[in-house]
Amino acid sequence: MSTIRRTWLPFLNADIPAACDTPIKVAEYELKLGCENLGIKAPALRVDPSMGEGYVLADAAVTGGGTGALYGVYAWLCAKAAGDSLPEGPQKPFWPLRMLDSWDNVDGFVERGYAGRSLWFEGGELRWDGPRIRQLGRMLASAGVNVLSVNNVNVRADAARLIEDKLPDLARLAEAFRPFGVRLMVSIEFSRPLAHGVGTADPLDENVGKWWKERADAVWAAIPDLAGFLVKADSEHRPGPFTYGRSHSEGANMLARAIAPHGGVLVWRAFVYNCRQDWRDTTTDRPKAAYETYAPLDGQFDDNVILQVKNGPFDFQVREPVSPTLYAMPNTRLAVEVQLAQEYTGQQIDIYAMNPMWRELTEALPPERAAAVAAVSNLGRDENYTGHPFAAANLYGYGRWAWDPWVDPRAVLRRWARLTYRLPEAQEDALVELLMNSRAVYEKYTANLGLGWMVNPHDHYGPNPGGYEYDLWGTYHKANRDAVGIDRTANGTGYTLQYPPQIRERYETPEACPDNLKLFFHRLRYDYRMADGRTLIQRLYDDHFEGCAGAEAMAGVLKGLDLPEPDRTEAAQRMEAQIKNAREWRDVLNTFFHRLSGAEDAKGRKIYD
Amino acid sequence: MSTIRRTWLPFLNADIPAACDTPIKVAEYELKLGCENLGIKAPALRVDPSMGEGYVLADAAVTGGGTGALYGVYAWLCAKAAGDSLPEGPQKPFWPLRMLDSWDNVDGFVERGYAGRSLWFEGGELRWDGPRIRQLGRMLASAGVNVLSVNNVNVRADAARLIEDKLPDLARLAEAFRPFGVRLMVSIEFSRPLAHGVGTADPLDENVGKWWKERADAVWAAIPDLAGFLVKADSEHRPGPFTYGRSHSEGANMLARAIAPHGGVLVWRAFVYNCRQDWRDTTTDRPKAAYETYAPLDGQFDDNVILQVKNGPFDFQVREPVSPTLYAMPNTRLAVEVQLAQEYTGQQIDIYAMNPMWRELTEALPPERAAAVAAVSNLGRDENYTGHPFAAANLYGYGRWAWDPWVDPRAVLRRWARLTYRLPEAQEDALVELLMNSRAVYEKYTANLGLGWMVNPHDHYGPNPGGYEYDLWGTYHKANRDAVGIDRTANGTGYTLQYPPQIRERYETPEACPDNLKLFFHRLRYDYRMADGRTLIQRLYDDHFEGCAGAEAMAGVLKGLDLPEPDRTEAAQRMEAQIKNAREWRDVLNTFFHRLSGAEDAKGRKIYD
Repeated sequence: MSTIRRTWLPFLNADIPAACDTPIKVAEYELKLGCENLGIKAPALRVDPSMGEGYVLADAAVTGGGTGALYGVYAWLCAKAAGDSLPEGPQKPFWPLRMLDSWDNVDGFVERGYAGRSLWFEGGELRWDGPRIRQLGRMLASAGVNVLSVNNVNVRADAARLIEDKLPDLARLAEAFRPFGVRLMVSIEFSRPLAHGVGTADPLDENVGKWWKERADAVWAAIPDLAGFLVKADSEHRPGPFTYGRSHSEGANMLARAIAPHGGVLVWRAFVYNCRQDWRDTTTDRPKAAYETYAPLDGQFDDNVILQVKNGPFDFQVREPVSPTLYAMPNTRLAVEVQLAQEYTGQQIDIYAMNPMWRELTEALPPERAAAVAAVSNLGRDENYTGHPFAAANLYGYGRWAWDPWVDPRAVLRRWARLTYRLPEAQEDALVELLMNSRAVYEKYTANLGLGWMVNPHDHYGPNPGGYEYDLWGTYHKANRDAVGIDRTANGTGYTLQYPPQIRERYETPEACPDNLKLFFHRLRYDYRMADGRTLIQRLYDDHFEGCAGAEAMAGVLKGLDLPEPDRTEAAQRMEAQIKNAREWRDVLNTFFHRLSGAEDAKGRKIYD
Repeated sequence: MSTIRRTWLPFLNADIPAACDTPIKVAEYELKLGCENLGIKAPALRVDPSMGEGYVLADAAVTGGGTGALYGVYAWLCAKAAGDSLPEGPQKPFWPLRMLDSWDNVDGFVERGYAGRSLWFEGGELRWDGPRIRQLGRMLASAGVNVLSVNNVNVRADAARLIEDKLPDLARLAEAFRPFGVRLMVSIEFSRPLAHGVGTADPLDENVGKWWKERADAVWAAIPDLAGFLVKADSEHRPGPFTYGRSHSEGANMLARAIAPHGGVLVWRAFVYNCRQDWRDTTTDRPKAAYETYAPLDGQFDDNVILQVKNGPFDFQVREPVSPTLYAMPNTRLAVEVQLAQEYTGQQIDIYAMNPMWRELTEALPPERAAAVAAVSNLGRDENYTGHPFAAANLYGYGRWAWDPWVDPRAVLRRWARLTYRLPEAQEDALVELLMNSRAVYEKYTANLGLGWMVNPHDHYGPNPGGYEYDLWGTYHKANRDAVGIDRTANGTGYTLQYPPQIRERYETPEACPDNLKLFFHRLRYDYRMADGRTLIQRLYDDHFEGCAGAEAMAGVLKGLDLPEPDRTEAAQRMEAQIKNAREWRDVLNTFFHRLSGAEDAKGRKIYD
């Protein structure tokens, strides 16, 4: 038997043969294997191409379109394996594009990767382990992810070759994922024509458009179902239209037109800000940047352009308000980008389940506002794919949320836990609660109340309250002996003015603003009274003590779970590191604020000098 | 004509031929070349082997021992070139070992190097440019440096091979330097026997001693005049005797006995401290570490062991008191280690002339206390050898100080300036004053008053007041809203108790303690009154403003100097970077202390929020 980790699909305990080269063949194989293992009668499998990705489930039959039949089979098997009832009525995904963005370099290194090296790149080449890639395809299909962007958005010359001389290899990778309903996407380099004798990359230059059109023709000839191109331009030192005095719609539309005849989408990342800001400059406020760049361009993007906007205006902090850009562009196809890779959220060492966070996003931003979703991948070559075994819940949960943004987070986590571990009921309850609370715990012991950014520069793990304070990245808290935070209201940087009035109202005054974003929007004195009567400084202390105690309590819960090996050992080892991290956060942040404020903890707990 | 930079010896404007393979031949060649260029009659060259490194100069004759004749020739030529009178009476060096320690890795990278890659290592091999190495030999001999340690004290496996299969190459490098009176030294790896089938590196194990003895025999057979071995043990993750429960004298003596028959010295670095300190631990005080480890071992080291102690108890900060270990071991041969490489002192971007600092060291520590001196090299493959053209003054000045610890810093800098540039008198005066003040300027705009350590972690350039505050390195200032600094007196960590009473008295009270070390020894409130009536906080502000203004003034002086190219451009470019650095230091530190103290600047200058 294969030693490949089955993640949340242990009842599908055999590799998928390479001969299963269409979604229907995979569906048939899985249905047989799954029903045998579950000891139940296999339903009929009916294909109705008109249903596309949709399906209908009954005890005796799974009916679905091309990929829909495969999705239906997984949904049917998972429901049965979990002992749940089947969903009623026709099922179809809310978002047609449910993208997973890999930040894999072709040398094999994964930027912000916490699960080992790339699953398909090494030493500049495309190489992969067939059975493991098919297992990944199974995971993605069972979660409903249908687009995989294969390379880092920071595209270096070696990666630019993916759509040039390395294209045949890429086509083979596309072939490997195709039976799972997963289409590839490729990150491209905006200035690439320069490397091919075109003297400019100006998007309005005829030869540039021509070069990209020829390239697109060649790419889609090799991979006819390629989903599209992904571009990071004019961002963190990447080239872009600004070099040529062109707007981002001009840049994006040029590329979009090159690929439109093939049905491809051009995904353009809206991650533009001044990453060389002078900390002395108080007129620039980084969260305002994306709106300022993109909102004026609403309506100017071609139909096959998708503007990919991060969920918050900064960069995947534990807690941010929804990016105002997402409310401001009704005439643009938008994708919301979230991050499974736990860059700022514990790096797959600390437990951090994301579905509760995404559900909040759904509640804050009507999902109809977005045309698609994207998530930065948390995958790597680690035996368990995600570093921490529980981080798989975020991949699974992302797919579920992308299928149905209103899905209940607790139901998703319970389904993942039950499929993965099948623990006794009390233990399953305990694990689900642990996961449900994990983000709140992490938020409490790190930079809470919307502060964010008090991390170690570069590696982004562990506390460093002054780490970015005098740096170039526009992420300042300006804590002094009296107060902390940035006033982002109309009286301050004016960031709140980017929101529609009814949302702005929620943030404009400290009293109206929810506690968990108070220090994102406001500069408050340490003696500011929170709604519950505590001072701000006391709340800062309390949260850090409580968050750390929460992590310690999680360790106790974990010990009581009969997890299989190696998950038990892996989770226990990481838990130990998490507790160390939580204590460091608690003590460093408490000391930092105590040194500034001089305020004693009302409960007399230990704060170091 | 060769394009090799002649540094401070432009009147020796031709390469030294490889045929000059003894000090006498070099001396003859230099004397002829120099006198021709200076248009003066050559003196007679007389060799008196009994004089060793010493010499006597007269207008008509240079008389000296083996290397002494060569030193005499350089001294004679430099005096004539500078238009100075010859020194009267017999001249000989104060310290017999005047070492230059290179931190060059065999892959070519120089740790803490700011002048390019290694001059003799590349890609794991020993390779060098003959004429450039001979020019370096000329520089070292003219300054009087007589030992060159070729490889980084952090010895990795590839560097350990220098005394194994790479020995023939090393012997050739020794041959290249031998005509200049420069003997090589090699950094070795304490646990190396493990890599050769000896099951331990325990210094008391018979087989370990035997392995080292055999190795030493082979090494000295290849390089009979090798100066010795240099060892960094039990320091910053290097292996050492502590692994085997042995003392450092046991470790050092074992090695010393292996090399004693060949006349080699075993230089043992006294740089042991806990580099994994918990910032919460207030019972450990890093400056105390070397004394605690070594003082009890006084008298226990073999005669051919030299214990190499950094000048200060921390690590080459702008201002530190003299290491108490240097006073505490009268029965041990000590070397004082200084650092030409400007790791914490501007990285060969900022101008920082060191002779004034070393003169202070001489005044604080009777030079008789030390048996030798060592300096971490500032050399690299840059065309001018030292990155900043003025940094050559530190190499030259180190040699002069090592020859005569009481040498007048101004005279040394004037000699260097005159030989190097031969500027009009007023310009030379201006350059000498600029250099003389450069350390005071740097000290003022950085972490002054003995604070140190407020640098960016890892790269050690630029301000970061909290950079090491919650880290593992034992370098904390614990600034809070009221006070800053660590109490290192008998009432505090007890560090002052490591000094002899008369020195201790100088530091024990804030009133007695000199301003420039106040915050090294004491924790003081921002409203503490300095001797001149200013508050501590005002002094902090004043120094940062004045230091930055000082750097800006230096730029003005520099503009007025008719330096030759490329020095003029190189110095101007670096000056621009230095001013940027100085402004960053000024503003970051002022803001940091303003946020903490809330104190306004008495002079109303701009302090950013």
